Amino acid sequence: MTKKDANKMWGGRFDSKPTDIMQQINVSIDVDARLWPHDIALSKAHAEMLGKQKIITKKEADTLIDGLNKIEKELQSSKFPFRPEFEDIHMNIEARLKELVGDVAGKLHTARSRNDQVATGFRMWTRDAISDLVAEIEGFQTTIKTLSKKHAKDVMPGFTHLQPAQPVTLGKHLDAYWHMLNRDKSRLQDCSKRLNKCPLGAAALAGTPFPIDRDFTAKKLGFDGPMENTMDAVSARDFVAEFLFACAQAGLHLSRLTEEIIIWSSTQFNFVALSDQWSTGSSIMPQKKNPDSAELVRGKTGRLTGNLVQLMTMMKGLPLTYNRDMQEDKESAFDSYDTLKLCLQVMNGALDTAKFNTDQMLQASEDGYTTATALADWLVMELGLPFRDAHHVTGKIVKLAEKKSCKLSELDLKDMQKIEAGITNDIFKVL
Amino acid sequence: MTKKDANKMWGGRFDSKPTDIMQQINVSIDVDARLWPHDIALSKAHAEMLGKQKIITKKEADTLIDGLNKIEKELQSSKFPFRPEFEDIHMNIEARLKELVGDVAGKLHTARSRNDQVATGFRMWTRDAISDLVAEIEGFQTTIKTLSKKHAKDVMPGFTHLQPAQPVTLGKHLDAYWHMLNRDKSRLQDCSKRLNKCPLGAAALAGTPFPIDRDFTAKKLGFDGPMENTMDAVSARDFVAEFLFACAQAGLHLSRLTEEIIIWSSTQFNFVALSDQWSTGSSIMPQKKNPDSAELVRGKTGRLTGNLVQLMTMMKGLPLTYNRDMQEDKESAFDSYDTLKLCLQVMNGALDTAKFNTDQMLQASEDGYTTATALADWLVMELGLPFRDAHHVTGKIVKLAEKKSCKLSELDLKDMQKIEAGITNDIFKVL
Amino acid sequence: MTKKDANKMWGGRFDSKPTDIMQQINVSIDVDARLWPHDIALSKAHAEMLGKQKIITKKEADTLIDGLNKIEKELQSSKFPFRPEFEDIHMNIEARLKELVGDVAGKLHTARSRNDQVATGFRMWTRDAISDLVAEIEGFQTTIKTLSKKHAKDVMPGFTHLQPAQPVTLGKHLDAYWHMLNRDKSRLQDCSKRLNKCPLGAAALAGTPFPIDRDFTAKKLGFDGPMENTMDAVSARDFVAEFLFACAQAGLHLSRLTEEIIIWSSTQFNFVALSDQWSTGSSIMPQKKNPDSAELVRGKTGRLTGNLVQLMTMMKGLPLTYNRDMQEDKESAFDSYDTLKLCLQVMNGALDTAKFNTDQMLQASEDGYTTATALADWLVMELGLPFRDAHHVTGKIVKLAEKKSCKLSELDLKDMQKIEAGITNDIFKVL
Amino acid sequence: MTKKDANKMWGGRFDSKPTDIMQQINVSIDVDARLWPHDIALSKAHAEMLGKQKIITKKEADTLIDGLNKIEKELQSSKFPFRPEFEDIHMNIEARLKELVGDVAGKLHTARSRNDQVATGFRMWTRDAISDLVAEIEGFQTTIKTLSKKHAKDVMPGFTHLQPAQPVTLGKHLDAYWHMLNRDKSRLQDCSKRLNKCPLGAAALAGTPFPIDRDFTAKKLGFDGPMENTMDAVSARDFVAEFLFACAQAGLHLSRLTEEIIIWSSTQFNFVALSDQWSTGSSIMPQKKNPDSAELVRGKTGRLTGNLVQLMTMMKGLPLTYNRDMQEDKESAFDSYDTLKLCLQVMNGALDTAKFNTDQMLQASEDGYTTATALADWLVMELGLPFRDAHHVTGKIVKLAEKKSCKLSELDLKDMQKIEAGITNDIFKVL
Repeated sequence: MTKKDANKMWGGRFDSKPTDIMQQINVSIDVDARLWPHDIALSKAHAEMLGKQKIITKKEADTLIDGLNKIEKELQSSKFPFRPEFEDIHMNIEARLKELVGDVAGKLHTARSRNDQVATGFRMWTRDAISDLVAEIEGFQTTIKTLSKKHAKDVMPGFTHLQPAQPVTLGKHLDAYWHMLNRDKSRLQDCSKRLNKCPLGAAALAGTPFPIDRDFTAKKLGFDGPMENTMDAVSARDFVAEFLFACAQAGLHLSRLTEEIIIWSSTQFNFVALSDQWSTGSSIMPQKKNPDSAELVRGKTGRLTGNLVQLMTMMKGLPLTYNRDMQEDKESAFDSYDTLKLCLQVMNGALDTAKFNTDQMLQASEDGYTTATALADWLVMELGLPFRDAHHVTGKIVKLAEKKSCKLSELDLKDMQKIEAGITNDIFKVL
Repeated sequence: MTKKDANKMWGGRFDSKPTDIMQQINVSIDVDARLWPHDIALSKAHAEMLGKQKIITKKEADTLIDGLNKIEKELQSSKFPFRPEFEDIHMNIEARLKELVGDVAGKLHTARSRNDQVATGFRMWTRDAISDLVAEIEGFQTTIKTLSKKHAKDVMPGFTHLQPAQPVTLGKHLDAYWHMLNRDKSRLQDCSKRLNKCPLGAAALAGTPFPIDRDFTAKKLGFDGPMENTMDAVSARDFVAEFLFACAQAGLHLSRLTEEIIIWSSTQFNFVALSDQWSTGSSIMPQKKNPDSAELVRGKTGRLTGNLVQLMTMMKGLPLTYNRDMQEDKESAFDSYDTLKLCLQVMNGALDTAKFNTDQMLQASEDGYTTATALADWLVMELGLPFRDAHHVTGKIVKLAEKKSCKLSELDLKDMQKIEAGITNDIFKVL
Repeated sequence: MTKKDANKMWGGRFDSKPTDIMQQINVSIDVDARLWPHDIALSKAHAEMLGKQKIITKKEADTLIDGLNKIEKELQSSKFPFRPEFEDIHMNIEARLKELVGDVAGKLHTARSRNDQVATGFRMWTRDAISDLVAEIEGFQTTIKTLSKKHAKDVMPGFTHLQPAQPVTLGKHLDAYWHMLNRDKSRLQDCSKRLNKCPLGAAALAGTPFPIDRDFTAKKLGFDGPMENTMDAVSARDFVAEFLFACAQAGLHLSRLTEEIIIWSSTQFNFVALSDQWSTGSSIMPQKKNPDSAELVRGKTGRLTGNLVQLMTMMKGLPLTYNRDMQEDKESAFDSYDTLKLCLQVMNGALDTAKFNTDQMLQASEDGYTTATALADWLVMELGLPFRDAHHVTGKIVKLAEKKSCKLSELDLKDMQKIEAGITNDIFKVL
Repeated sequence: MTKKDANKMWGGRFDSKPTDIMQQINVSIDVDARLWPHDIALSKAHAEMLGKQKIITKKEADTLIDGLNKIEKELQSSKFPFRPEFEDIHMNIEARLKELVGDVAGKLHTARSRNDQVATGFRMWTRDAISDLVAEIEGFQTTIKTLSKKHAKDVMPGFTHLQPAQPVTLGKHLDAYWHMLNRDKSRLQDCSKRLNKCPLGAAALAGTPFPIDRDFTAKKLGFDGPMENTMDAVSARDFVAEFLFACAQAGLHLSRLTEEIIIWSSTQFNFVALSDQWSTGSSIMPQKKNPDSAELVRGKTGRLTGNLVQLMTMMKGLPLTYNRDMQEDKESAFDSYDTLKLCLQVMNGALDTAKFNTDQMLQASEDGYTTATALADWLVMELGLPFRDAHHVTGKIVKLAEKKSCKLSELDLKDMQKIEAGITNDIFKVL
């Protein structure tokens, strides 16, 4: 890094340059480089607006846009020269622009500040990230719907407290996740709608005396309109927290699904076997086939929750408007996006190729007295017992079956009648 | 507590009763008692539906509803006999019903389970809590809007990095919080919409063979309709996490406002003085007048964030459907509601009666070179300098003023011209 | 509440009194009342020291101590009149003291402030809480050690990835928790040692001009000595965070144990059955016997983690010294103590009375190819294969057994020799 | 990546290979590469022990150690060929070993598993990280001690509630942080002591039938001894949580210091100016000099807290022993180490070069009635008033001074005597 250039952008009043360690904590290019497509897009929109408003000449605007197009190509083809001495992606692009188009590059920053520039680019990124995640969720929902239909009639025990409770179908069980994912999707979409106002034009915090057209840039960049309050525009990060929460909540749902996959993959349950592609082995135990994909996804829940806590802790107690603490706003968002996307892809693939042992499931639903509720319901419907009494009677019958180590359907009618005299032979229809 | 009664509701198959310590961790009546209005309402709707569907007789339904009405009055007048041996509010009400109407009380639990009952009541509570919080937010927004208009022309320094940046108005500064609160409100409302489907009829997890009418009860209780998947219905708690997040994010916004109030209340800033009603003194330092109300609200951010983490950690990795861990789903929600409501009321009152020292603010905006950006903009607009160059020139002028310990407007024209020859006397108009 | 008294302690310079809502957020007596034993003890030590140092007369000191002894008895016998208008436990005791001994009560607060008073009392409470928790942990460790010895030879499958990996004993498995608890204990003890310095004498923050004897009070109250820096003394709360972390980490260990209990209690595993006392039933499914005690403990992990996050968020970014945010420092600590204590008692009882199905465990260790590692080790030891090759060979043999749906020990020697020619009949000794 | 090689280490029983997406979530080499020095060291110790115990020949052991030495040099000189198809650092090193020394490389994994290998290497890394952080803390403490001595007599207002409370010295204020850091250091050291037992020899979870010498390897690698329970050895990660907590708590202390630096750097306080090296400017406001270094450090608190929550959430509810979720155990630890180290270096540099405006501080301590407590103490000592009454009298005197907009020392004696008749001219000595 050329020390001489290190404070090119804001160094006018400074005597000395940041130290190496300061550079280390100050520079964010490694993290925010991925904002480049949004930074280029908003710079082009800004340049076009400056020209349209005659704040710069039409020719200057065109020169800037041409230069930005060239940079875009460099970035697309991985030829762009990233340089840490320019701190972040925004400064890197502006510095490169100067090399390409000369001093006119300095005019691009007219009537804007890094504060509104970053806020705008980051909102655009989040919008795109959500759109991506929604597509992944929908893909996974399709897989689940297909499996759900396929197994619509495959009976399995429904669990409460991980104890067999009542018979359900595997289709219904899987469909529960379809609905969870649907709410996860709608949370992300709400977040996207709420954040879709444009900070550009807020400049550092107070707007700008230049005759800019905020509606033009907002519309050009796909926003619903400009953010009303310029101080809010540069300092708000609740859209990030909301995004991180939506990701973390989706992760929580995946943690429930993966917990089930892992338990069902156990030798004892044997309800499901992930395909070899989505499993791994052991370096010491040659017989092992582990549901690692599910475990890794379950483990990522921590990451998604941690990211949310990171941002919320960081924002706590910050006065208006921009504070440098907020440089720490993007890494978590990028990480939660990458993580959730990967987790959805992994679970989509893992479920799609999993083998459900429906025979085993059916048999399990026959053990564990899961028809006891049906028995109690029968006592209510046929004998007119209040439910609470029916429940009590059934409890005694179950205990009897446990003592005899038999299924409910294998009990003797007379034994049951000793507990509740009204029971008839019809009872065996529901057991 | 009468041990004999302790497992009245589910004790049929049990030999011994829970121990005292088990009771201690098992019983939730201290927490969930406040769900009673929703439990009564849903029990009445359920009874009416059972009657309508002829699952019980019309007369039985009427008896149950009469009994529930009596209990409602006991609860309203604090005469209801809460008893820990009946574990939770639902069992307490059912036990009381039996005392009031006799054995027919047992029929109320036909075709339902505590699982769908609790999930329904809790969704109703959350809906009400949100409606309450929205009203509090709107009240606070009104106060802010009024202050914002009152101070629309009162100039103060706008800060970045807690350094004076550019002049803004106090009205604009306060208005930024109006917008934050507006998003907080809309997040709560989205949550309310998303949760507004009715679990009732899902029973334990699998629905029920009784010919119930789920649309009827859903509509009766103000829901948009029944939840589609019965396993999802009893095990979903993402609505709680979303509610807790929305509260925590609102708390984060309040933490920014209170941080400012506290800093502004310092002797050094002296921008604001809270009224005596919203301040406290010291037991040892007689001169102290502390902005305790703001500090207490800022401190509550921790609580709101902690509550969110509590629920998310608790739900992590739970298999379907209901697990007893989920008993821990309500206390945080109740606490976040109480906390946020109180914080909004406190800040509403504190701001409403605060005295803003607008003279001090105006003077502060004249110190700190907050007009430097205007100077740089003038260099661009009048002399045609690219912004980056104008920025550099201004930096040098500021440094000169610092060296001379004077305001920018007190600098000598010639000194400025040594830095940039094109500067004319007009410059003093913008300084 | 008598409004007139509301600001008795610090109201000299105030025109108006706090509003009702301010009282609501300001008053902490509901939470901090349980600090009374420590507040009484430190007030007695302080009074004695004031007398000894002749800051007050010997007679005054005796009067104060007598009064405090009377209050102690009132508190022990639940006859103490708690009054919210005196905000917190410290003010309540001082107000009561004035009623009992007259104006001399005002002398008790000589040379101290609520800041050092609260900090001291809270450290004493934490010390006691830790001592209690350590005893609970040791009690639970004893139970585990006993079970561990009892089952020292009961073979069960050791799991990785919830897949049977290698045979272990139940004794060894349980003993792993003994070691985790041992580290939990040592973390709590380290915390207790580190916090054991006395803030008393720091007064508000700057010490006091009175000729106090800090060593005397520190020693009297069981501290290792006074805290060196008075500003640190009143503002440090890292001892609370450390306590909350130590509790949360112990909770995490319990969450692993309870997860196992819950999985092992499933019909499919059937490794353990909790006694009826530590289980509960279902209001709709009469056959259910749920491991609720384990689930409730697992659920409490969220609470313990949430409490830690609460305190850390609250303390973030607070300038020195005392800020009112710190009123929120005690509730989490009290709750984590209560929660962890209860969880330890519950698990102690639940494990002590649990029935381990050692037959089932033994059989499970014979399924699942858990002897495969032994086979690989044999190939290394007897045939001299590098471990990696032995691993590969074993993998193929396991696959063969899977295809044939048989145990490793049921495979044909010739079939194994096709995979690795060197295998001899001796192999069956290790399978 | 060569797909063919992808499951070289454990692929014996597998039909197909992991998919690309599975590889993405499965591979950890990008994260765990930095464990290489510890992995090399432990592999050498293991090889030496295998030779010593005659589990492999002396010659084989020497060959393995030679190979490992070569790899060590490759790694030191950045010539080591990292390959994602070998998943993690351990597999990468073993694969390279095979290339360098041939088939004998396969013998290195005799009597060990990745489970004990990773746990051992990670404990060694944490031990080193702590040792490093302790050195950084001590360096920072030295800087603080020096500043503290230098400013031992520079008077400044001590704050509570960010209100001037009583005069203190800057030296005392800074010294408070020395003590906080000292506890942070001791927490890290406790963690290091507690984790210093060696998992090696636990193999996958159950130990190994080979006649290994665990004491030898433990001692060789600087541990106090082997971990007693092998299942605990491979599954415990409380040492990571404790490390993350210790880092987060140190970060919390830094967040308090940085908050103060930021507030003190404001134009209004003007108590301190960071040097240019530790400040940055603005891209739009040329006059700005922002305390970015302090803000960046304050912002990192979020990261450190988030990392702690990540690990605790991830570990919640994991059954014994190793689960793949635990792959997520290292990234947070690495990040918290890097972050805290950087923050300590930044604050060390920033404070070392900061300019404290002691004149401004002195003047501030004269405003704000910080001598009021001294006045109250005088009333107690000279007039014998009970403290509570003295407090009340002083409150009235302060209010009078406020009304007259004067300092306490500028009040008229007669005016004070109207409030408390006993006051004499001596009072002006303490004001």
